[in-house]
Amino acid sequence: MKLKDQTNVSAALKGTKYRNFPMVPRVIFGSGCFDQLGEILLPARKHAQAPMIFLVDDVFEGKTLMGRIPAIMEDRIILISAREEPRTGQVDALVRRIRSESPYPPSGIVGIGGGTLLDLAKAVAIMINNEGPTEAYQGWDLVRHPAVYHVGVPTLSGTGAEVSRTTVLLGPDRKLGINSDHTPFDQVVLDPDLTLGVPREQWFYTGMDCFIHCVESLNGGYINAFSRSYGEKAMELCQEVFLGDLSPEESRENLMMASWHGGMSIAYSQVGVAHALSYGLSYVLHIPHGLGNCLVFQHLSEFYPEGVRLFERMMKKQGIVLPEGFCSGLPEEELDLMAQVALEMEPLWENALGEGWREQVGPERIKDIYRKI
Amino acid sequence: MKLKDQTNVSAALKGTKYRNFPMVPRVIFGSGCFDQLGEILLPARKHAQAPMIFLVDDVFEGKTLMGRIPAIMEDRIILISAREEPRTGQVDALVRRIRSESPYPPSGIVGIGGGTLLDLAKAVAIMINNEGPTEAYQGWDLVRHPAVYHVGVPTLSGTGAEVSRTTVLLGPDRKLGINSDHTPFDQVVLDPDLTLGVPREQWFYTGMDCFIHCVESLNGGYINAFSRSYGEKAMELCQEVFLGDLSPEESRENLMMASWHGGMSIAYSQVGVAHALSYGLSYVLHIPHGLGNCLVFQHLSEFYPEGVRLFERMMKKQGIVLPEGFCSGLPEEELDLMAQVALEMEPLWENALGEGWREQVGPERIKDIYRKI
Repeated sequence: MKLKDQTNVSAALKGTKYRNFPMVPRVIFGSGCFDQLGEILLPARKHAQAPMIFLVDDVFEGKTLMGRIPAIMEDRIILISAREEPRTGQVDALVRRIRSESPYPPSGIVGIGGGTLLDLAKAVAIMINNEGPTEAYQGWDLVRHPAVYHVGVPTLSGTGAEVSRTTVLLGPDRKLGINSDHTPFDQVVLDPDLTLGVPREQWFYTGMDCFIHCVESLNGGYINAFSRSYGEKAMELCQEVFLGDLSPEESRENLMMASWHGGMSIAYSQVGVAHALSYGLSYVLHIPHGLGNCLVFQHLSEFYPEGVRLFERMMKKQGIVLPEGFCSGLPEEELDLMAQVALEMEPLWENALGEGWREQVGPERIKDIYRKI
Repeated sequence: MKLKDQTNVSAALKGTKYRNFPMVPRVIFGSGCFDQLGEILLPARKHAQAPMIFLVDDVFEGKTLMGRIPAIMEDRIILISAREEPRTGQVDALVRRIRSESPYPPSGIVGIGGGTLLDLAKAVAIMINNEGPTEAYQGWDLVRHPAVYHVGVPTLSGTGAEVSRTTVLLGPDRKLGINSDHTPFDQVVLDPDLTLGVPREQWFYTGMDCFIHCVESLNGGYINAFSRSYGEKAMELCQEVFLGDLSPEESRENLMMASWHGGMSIAYSQVGVAHALSYGLSYVLHIPHGLGNCLVFQHLSEFYPEGVRLFERMMKKQGIVLPEGFCSGLPEEELDLMAQVALEMEPLWENALGEGWREQVGPERIKDIYRKI
């Protein structure tokens, strides 16, 4: 889960007591349901010249999925690499390209891929209908005009990007989401078959994004009964997937649902220590979010004893060995910067440790954890 | 849950493989969040003369809740009795009244109450924007124009009406829902405090509506991973509420979430034997849906052994004694009619017992169950 921390801040900023949470208004679930996408998009097509834009993870280049994308008439398929995290400049460039390639505004944006592609699709859909640059919208509730119709098709389970009201982007100054009620998808297509063929490590790390988020939110002080019910279910599904003996099909289905419920659980909750430290790690070393969470989480038994025990069992059962040596040789000033970034995530610390969190953690304690990674 | 059986038939009729399920696009949850309703309604107000119409269960007459309803300007509060199930003629009359009392179409309809009030609000919102009579829309996907903005505020937990895409109405010819993508609420307000003061029996019977539905759907053949995940969570929450030792506050919160998840679980599932028999009971004897389900379910251990055992434990723990003697003296032709109505619910039987269900149940077996009630 990416910067879910940002979602609750918004309600607080507005002075409202509870967030009025925007849910994805349409969802289809089922093995093979991707083939219904063409029919689903039909009513959203404005006219024959207004294209659907498909943003697709370039790992699918040359794969059969490409031939199943229902691109017709003036539609465009744009392949995008998810090796780097999405950037505001990338969104600006995509919007310019989409505008230049058609005299008519698009009918909609369809993101097909993992969290990066989903976040890009959400951001592009917003920026099609709002004046740029994208970086001006990083923050809370800065989007003025509704996004163009946008659809999320996850091909990787765990990020929760398919249901969240944020889209996390690396800007020139900061990594921050466009958090708004216009951000969530208008439609999500949950086809567990699309996660077939995900490399094993990536499958595990992304699944752990969901698991770790749930550990943090369920053990945090911000949660309420709404979010707890979703978070508990996501946790349970993660355990079935990573500790149980499901069939591959059940495993894909349940992890997709874990991601969905995990994302929903953020409505009234917050992540914690693992995400705070993971941001520091990503910021300085550009480690992917899922892996970063795992690298950090393994050393957090003092904060989440039961969660870390479960995590260790999952790693063992799945035969995952985490890479090492990321921080051992780092200069002190880089460690300082990482600790600083982590400590700036104040709501995460408050959620995890309560209002007096500053008495419990400081740069030294955090750097000690980083040094183990 | 009312006639949730109707939801899957629609996808089958349309020849699509999976339903593209409409979710409630906005939800707010929290103790006391009802006080945010005024602020929530504001952007939906078309102009000062276009009223919000509040349909409110008349049990709240003279209660403090009335003073908290954010009725301003030309808004109307209409008190409605939930002692009888909602009727198509009642919807027609409400629509005529609303039209006659204001020269402008309403800004929206807000239903405040249990399943009956929620179903009425959904039906009135549809019929404001569609030519009558209401009975012409009983069925699947017959609604042509989107409903006017409508909001559901449950004050009773268990029916799932707050998330369903149906509104079940007693018509001149039949009891059947208006099943459509325009039926679900645009906004739901989940304030567990509103369920304070529900009479104990009603609380139990309505909660059991959710529990029994989950037993039926989880044990049925139609379910998939999406619906199972919601159904399992609803089940778990019901058990915490009725068998655990929660505080009254937690109990209210968890039952409200159980109802929500139970309603969501219907997206790709179906009820079964209990609901089929309960319809027969309601049709002939006008027994309220929640009580009817309980009266039937206690005798269904041959179909749902584990579910019935749990049900018995819940009854015992909660000190509930079901009323008796409803069918003992009934004339044979009434029992025949009840069995006929029950057997007409074909998808429910197929879900419960598979395609060969007719070899397993017939009128005699069903009448034997009714005679025990």
